[in-house]
Amino acid sequence: MRNLDENTITQAVLARLEHATDERLKDIVTSLVRHLHAFAREVNLTEAEWEQGIQFLTGVGHFTDDKRQEFILLSDTLGLSTLVTAMANRKPLGCTEATVFGPFFVEGAPEYQNGDDVANGARGEPCFVSGFIRGLGGEPVAGARIEVWQADADGFYDVQHAGDDAHRARGVLHSLANGRYHFRSIVAEPYPIPHDGPVGRMLDALGRHPWRPAHLHFMITAPGYERLVTHVFRDGDKYLDSDAVFGVRSSLVAQWIPHEEGVAPDGTRMNTPFSTLEFDFILNRSS
Amino acid sequence: MRNLDENTITQAVLARLEHATDERLKDIVTSLVRHLHAFAREVNLTEAEWEQGIQFLTGVGHFTDDKRQEFILLSDTLGLSTLVTAMANRKPLGCTEATVFGPFFVEGAPEYQNGDDVANGARGEPCFVSGFIRGLGGEPVAGARIEVWQADADGFYDVQHAGDDAHRARGVLHSLANGRYHFRSIVAEPYPIPHDGPVGRMLDALGRHPWRPAHLHFMITAPGYERLVTHVFRDGDKYLDSDAVFGVRSSLVAQWIPHEEGVAPDGTRMNTPFSTLEFDFILNRSS
Repeated sequence: MRNLDENTITQAVLARLEHATDERLKDIVTSLVRHLHAFAREVNLTEAEWEQGIQFLTGVGHFTDDKRQEFILLSDTLGLSTLVTAMANRKPLGCTEATVFGPFFVEGAPEYQNGDDVANGARGEPCFVSGFIRGLGGEPVAGARIEVWQADADGFYDVQHAGDDAHRARGVLHSLANGRYHFRSIVAEPYPIPHDGPVGRMLDALGRHPWRPAHLHFMITAPGYERLVTHVFRDGDKYLDSDAVFGVRSSLVAQWIPHEEGVAPDGTRMNTPFSTLEFDFILNRSS
Repeated sequence: MRNLDENTITQAVLARLEHATDERLKDIVTSLVRHLHAFAREVNLTEAEWEQGIQFLTGVGHFTDDKRQEFILLSDTLGLSTLVTAMANRKPLGCTEATVFGPFFVEGAPEYQNGDDVANGARGEPCFVSGFIRGLGGEPVAGARIEVWQADADGFYDVQHAGDDAHRARGVLHSLANGRYHFRSIVAEPYPIPHDGPVGRMLDALGRHPWRPAHLHFMITAPGYERLVTHVFRDGDKYLDSDAVFGVRSSLVAQWIPHEEGVAPDGTRMNTPFSTLEFDFILNRSS
């Protein structure tokens, strides 16, 4: 143990786990140490590069507070979030695919009735969203809890607007007896992930842009079914093939259909252009 | 690119590096992403465990400030620091081995003459340290800059004592014409790394103790030679085989010889017991 060198250090660290009683933690740390060391060896990491790594992580830590989670952005932009989401959500063919949760979900979104406008003043072109919640056998799922959240026309979520705690373009509703849901909101627009911090500088150094294609977040829960956390993406968006956080699934891309002023699907008389989106969600039975 | 799943996500992230112009950064990030994803796959990391990981790193970031570097402690306790140090300091046989830098070095240590007491009031049994600085061919290295720092009898470095910016048990001196150096200080004692933060809780969860065996830090620079950053460890210390940061090399373990009151090596009349330590350093020529 006293003659550690670049060849023996990994085994020495792993041997030090002999008194760990949490077997799962031991397995995770064993794999983490092996891969961390293998990475350093593979690139022959220099002391100056190690120092830069320490400074980078310190910067990520100091940029993180209760409104900004720079470590989640780091995980998202390195594809780790998508990998973990995919492994945790292996579903039978036919079920709606899951995608990343993202850092902009907040607890306590307001409750709405079907037909309500969840925009609550958020800036954007009106959009009427509707569809059905069904099980894999085609059965309607009544009373499913549907939470939606999205960015506004400026590419910001409500929580990113300073000096105002109002929930906008964010709400909770429940599916009707036949599984149908419908609400009014605004058209989703593409936006860059927050890139004024260390992760933004990392993307820049790697020649990557920070943009996400336009999307609408959904989290759907219903008794007897697995929770579904996903997005619906807007077809035609120029960032569909280069989402900064690797969240796009082709099965989640849908048409936002533009309409001139006139009568909306729910009978509302619109004096401005508006869009409509129809999207059905197929839930997996919980086991 | 739009059908990412747990099998294709890694290649998708790597493909996104196509516009990176810094080839070294691209190589490092490529290896990092591969190993990060391989780790998550190998342990089948769950969403809850990912969330715990995010919280852990956030805690490490928030514990880090200009006096406490929790990310370096994390690197040290996972053996990464020792690995990077070993790879960066491949020296010919016969040279003094390097070891980890540690988080307690500070700039601006006071200058001393050979024979001075660098303790400057730090609590501990007096210790007279001496030896030669030589090159690999046996030649004396005159005028080498020797920086020393160490913990006191309570196991704390000067920077860990609140409310006092004095440098204690820390100083800079230069080797004499024949390569010899000698100074007075205090006996090094074992101490725990700071363990009141996330890294301490990690060690606890892994059944590991936070102790380091007693040691004296040296950083030696001289024109024409490679910089040497190392420790001298105290033989007989109970933590020599389980250093929390994996820094021990058997070639760096030396005898602190205890003496009753009497005349010290430099002629000082001591009215209390004291110790002596002799240690020679062999530097590698810079290329």
